[in-house]
Amino acid sequence: MTLIADAVAALGLTLPPASAPVATYVSTVRSGALLYVSGQIPMADGQPACLGRIGDGLSAADGLRAAQAAALGVLAQVAAATDGRVASVRQVVKLGVFVACTPDFTGQPQVANGASDLMVAVFGDAGRHTRAAVGVAALPRGVAVEVDAVFELEAGQ
Amino acid sequence: MTLIADAVAALGLTLPPASAPVATYVSTVRSGALLYVSGQIPMADGQPACLGRIGDGLSAADGLRAAQAAALGVLAQVAAATDGRVASVRQVVKLGVFVACTPDFTGQPQVANGASDLMVAVFGDAGRHTRAAVGVAALPRGVAVEVDAVFELEAGQ
Amino acid sequence: MTLIADAVAALGLTLPPASAPVATYVSTVRSGALLYVSGQIPMADGQPACLGRIGDGLSAADGLRAAQAAALGVLAQVAAATDGRVASVRQVVKLGVFVACTPDFTGQPQVANGASDLMVAVFGDAGRHTRAAVGVAALPRGVAVEVDAVFELEAGQ
Repeated sequence: MTLIADAVAALGLTLPPASAPVATYVSTVRSGALLYVSGQIPMADGQPACLGRIGDGLSAADGLRAAQAAALGVLAQVAAATDGRVASVRQVVKLGVFVACTPDFTGQPQVANGASDLMVAVFGDAGRHTRAAVGVAALPRGVAVEVDAVFELEAGQ
Repeated sequence: MTLIADAVAALGLTLPPASAPVATYVSTVRSGALLYVSGQIPMADGQPACLGRIGDGLSAADGLRAAQAAALGVLAQVAAATDGRVASVRQVVKLGVFVACTPDFTGQPQVANGASDLMVAVFGDAGRHTRAAVGVAALPRGVAVEVDAVFELEAGQ
Repeated sequence: MTLIADAVAALGLTLPPASAPVATYVSTVRSGALLYVSGQIPMADGQPACLGRIGDGLSAADGLRAAQAAALGVLAQVAAATDGRVASVRQVVKLGVFVACTPDFTGQPQVANGASDLMVAVFGDAGRHTRAAVGVAALPRGVAVEVDAVFELEAGQ
């Protein structure tokens, strides 16, 4: 009966509040067994965090932390859309990891591992997902990483 | 029994013709209850419109109009793949909004609202979707915005 | 009972080995009838291939070959996740084609046709998919194209 918030805390991290969209879209939509999660950005104290581009002042290690922070936002949305238990997630299906970077940065996989490793740390084998990691020109509010996701939930969620 | 085309017209807009892909892909694929829609670009009189990059001659407001135009293309494809009624759409599940922009532009959410607001204006609560908005280097034929989508349809569609 | 590998060989191409992710994500996840495939990059002799950016030393034709190579990687993953038969795929649902390019390159559709045409050549009508083709700043390990995918499989796969 482990909660996602507790599993995150056991890693020495903190599940942030599920951020509210500031527009007409929503954070999650359920369709059949799938839960789609809107792109999440790193947040700290309610403000966008991890600002900048990888390769232009930010390192790959900075990017990994940004990806982890964005993935914590994904987990917060999943927890808010379910009863919050780790066991409510049958499988993390897909992560899209968008990395704001210079044209010569090629370490998107290392950056994306900040999100991927968190999923496996929280959900175990059910956290092993597909992903696409790409380097983009710019991201909302100047953050370094955005992560969107598709989860498969247990029946009853 | 409102038609998507009529709901769009009531907003003072015009549903464009569903554009035909110029290659071996298709505009929509149905899988179970889900309708996947290929990335659509703004079109006017059968030609790509809203050309350029946001932050380099185009403003965020230009981008919002480009996102609305691309989203009209999405609606045209959904109408063509169904009986065209608003009620055929159970839920707009996901929009991917790709914004061609300079590396210092961070207003992708405002741009993407041009697509998001249209969905809610046409479908009401069923139009409230998840989305990812990212800034990319360049888009097909030089347009400023591309939008792809996943819809959930009513049974029988 | 045609195998995907044989259909690829009949085109004068070679199905590469299914590459193993070098991190905590996985190459494919099955959810219901859908098979999600992680972003694949062009590989040759086990190494990333087709390096560079379109518009900066690489041509659209180079990009088309890179997209074909990345799509061969997608097919290798699908073959490894199923019994390998062409008939195991009910429909190619969606391709995401990410093209590393300069801001002034607008031929993403021509590049993406390298992936799209391969799907139709192997699967026929079942290969006719939706797609989004976008130009990005940079891709993992410096490759020119990355392709991710969603397939619908036949029951029993």
